[in-house]
Amino acid sequence: MLKTYTYADLSTADIDKLVLRNSDPNQSIQSTVNDIIEDVRQNGDAALINYAAKFDQVQLEKLYLEKEEIEELAATISRDQQRALEIAFQNIHKFHSTQLKRERVVETMPGVKCWREVRPIEKVGLYIPGGSAVLPSTLLMLGVPARIAGCKEIVVCSPPQKNGKINGFVAYCLLLLKIERIYLVGGAQAVAAMAFGTSSIPKVDKIFGPGNQFVTKAKSTIQSLTNVSIDIPAGPSEVLVIADHTANPAYVAADLLAQAEHGSDSQAVLVATSAEIVTKVNAELESQLAVLPRKEIAAKAIENSYAVITSDLREAMRFSNIYAPEHLIIETDYWQTVTSLILNAGSVFLGHLTPESAGDYASGTNHTLPTSGYARSYSGVSVDSFVKKITFQSINEEGIKQIGSTVEILAELEGLQAHRNAVSIRKK
Amino acid sequence: MLKTYTYADLSTADIDKLVLRNSDPNQSIQSTVNDIIEDVRQNGDAALINYAAKFDQVQLEKLYLEKEEIEELAATISRDQQRALEIAFQNIHKFHSTQLKRERVVETMPGVKCWREVRPIEKVGLYIPGGSAVLPSTLLMLGVPARIAGCKEIVVCSPPQKNGKINGFVAYCLLLLKIERIYLVGGAQAVAAMAFGTSSIPKVDKIFGPGNQFVTKAKSTIQSLTNVSIDIPAGPSEVLVIADHTANPAYVAADLLAQAEHGSDSQAVLVATSAEIVTKVNAELESQLAVLPRKEIAAKAIENSYAVITSDLREAMRFSNIYAPEHLIIETDYWQTVTSLILNAGSVFLGHLTPESAGDYASGTNHTLPTSGYARSYSGVSVDSFVKKITFQSINEEGIKQIGSTVEILAELEGLQAHRNAVSIRKK
Repeated sequence: MLKTYTYADLSTADIDKLVLRNSDPNQSIQSTVNDIIEDVRQNGDAALINYAAKFDQVQLEKLYLEKEEIEELAATISRDQQRALEIAFQNIHKFHSTQLKRERVVETMPGVKCWREVRPIEKVGLYIPGGSAVLPSTLLMLGVPARIAGCKEIVVCSPPQKNGKINGFVAYCLLLLKIERIYLVGGAQAVAAMAFGTSSIPKVDKIFGPGNQFVTKAKSTIQSLTNVSIDIPAGPSEVLVIADHTANPAYVAADLLAQAEHGSDSQAVLVATSAEIVTKVNAELESQLAVLPRKEIAAKAIENSYAVITSDLREAMRFSNIYAPEHLIIETDYWQTVTSLILNAGSVFLGHLTPESAGDYASGTNHTLPTSGYARSYSGVSVDSFVKKITFQSINEEGIKQIGSTVEILAELEGLQAHRNAVSIRKK
Repeated sequence: MLKTYTYADLSTADIDKLVLRNSDPNQSIQSTVNDIIEDVRQNGDAALINYAAKFDQVQLEKLYLEKEEIEELAATISRDQQRALEIAFQNIHKFHSTQLKRERVVETMPGVKCWREVRPIEKVGLYIPGGSAVLPSTLLMLGVPARIAGCKEIVVCSPPQKNGKINGFVAYCLLLLKIERIYLVGGAQAVAAMAFGTSSIPKVDKIFGPGNQFVTKAKSTIQSLTNVSIDIPAGPSEVLVIADHTANPAYVAADLLAQAEHGSDSQAVLVATSAEIVTKVNAELESQLAVLPRKEIAAKAIENSYAVITSDLREAMRFSNIYAPEHLIIETDYWQTVTSLILNAGSVFLGHLTPESAGDYASGTNHTLPTSGYARSYSGVSVDSFVKKITFQSINEEGIKQIGSTVEILAELEGLQAHRNAVSIRKK
């Protein structure tokens, strides 16, 4: 049963409270993470081998697997599973390969040409969570845009299984991505290793990927401590489903539960245009939840979730924009009328037949998305995340004549004489 | 006189040391900044009025100026100055307005459509430094892309002058940008005010702009403390000039000094293809420096700078890519042969007649750029910085048939049954 609120009864302060999540970014684990980072910085590989023994219960002799070992593991999965990973790879590749375009040269004044060129970030680090939840889909979601961007060095870290290996699904994705090595390092220590580099693990320029609270805290610490950057600050996953009378309550409930099974801290918010819809969805939630293997986790997440009743779709969109959901599913016949009202969201699923699961795995869009309200200012991961756009300008004799006095006046009024000189000397 | 190194003699460790800058991100001011942030969060406007009295020596009655006051101040500058600001505005607008394009819909499988749509970040905060160096150009560099992006609320903060006003140049830029209010708040307190909101100052989603070390530290603190994001982590400004025998030593020296006059912590690096070039540039540096009004600052910056001698342009580019300069000026007849070798830089100035000053003010490119090696993974500010790209997907009956089993298999292999159900229930 979802806690239920009526939008019209909520004050601004009530709404602020409702949409607030992840407000405690776990300061308590900061000191543990700081210790791990410092240990890895000082002791490199030795520290990583210790942590593997401590956290992953495995005594590693080397910190990576290479092509032959990866191929062996990849061969252990079924052809159907390989085929499913291939289709996901292809769809993700097809969508992401349209994201980078050559930009044209702009002549802002006669003789003054300006343009942008794209360059890959040379060295990127991808963190792929392991342990209980192994996520080969995340490797595709990060590896495909990194390949399209043309990153020279793609460093992949994932915690080892107890046998010192990785699972076959992750191995098969490595082959699809033509990545010939994987580093057997997990947690905050993986982030530290990629930020500083060790004998085995190359230092990177930017670190990508989701992870538990230690990984997340390590990423934000690294970001403020070094000049290695990160993709997006991450929090628990979330969905907001908008449903009106045309929605199928069974579909809505299935979508809420798909979010809820991620973890007890996941949030699944229903925004419905009548109380009746909420009642029907609650009934479906109960029956579908009962038969889920991860029902305890999902039930806890549903407890932390809620429903909001609005008078119409427009009001529903208003709430959704304040919430700024990572995933937004719009289950109504009239979805085409509301898409232009969407201001803040990570990824949007339109209509009755577009479950979030499709985008999580295979529609082609990226599943690495801004959570916790970051969708107000962040985009999800795309090829853009793996490149820089460098600006260029080239001025000729005509151009320096045209622009010269403007620059001289502006430098003068800001009191920067040497800036002025750099132009004046060229006008002579 | 620039300290001079020969590239061939440098070990990897030497190079690492040479390109390292801003390695002490001033931990010492963290506690001051934390106190200011906490004070503003708790006491809002009252704290801001106290800080104005303390840091800006002005007793403010209200924390902003409005349209009429702005117009009055703008009228105090000369027509020539207005005209120069207008030309800069137009060029910046012309270049930036080409940066956002509608993207096409990609049908990744029959019936599975994916696309991205751009949405402005609704509320943005622009910090414009004041006090000794007032930078109207920075207001244009941030305000123009914010306007093009379509941001609904543009909050501008700048420290008040001792008379409780702002200077006429900044006022005129506000008019050009059709921004009708400016908040008289500077320093870390301005960043805190925009991050939390006060009675006078609206809370924003993202904070932009350069500033002194207190502003910079406040931005990075806010970034890890709240879900307000920031444009780029900022450090002292820097330039790297590549010069060969075709370069004019007087131009090269003028460009190094334009960087050096910014502050004693600025860095101006010369990479030259012969010792002779360095000698000539040193001679020019001496004579040009002698007559600069900010010569003490510039001389200190030159002391902290250096020259590297390489055997050719290719080797020069290699060093430049490791340094990853904010500004890169390439002074050679052969600049067209090296642009494709540029991997890491913020903004690039090509040929003998393209001084950095042109881009600082008026060529049209943005001057808010990644420093301290961040050019390895960050782009400069552009319209992209003021928007999000939201992904959308829409699947029809044909689509769910096509993609369904792939999603089911992948959800299954990740052990996420509810993810699978969300598809299976729709295939029935």
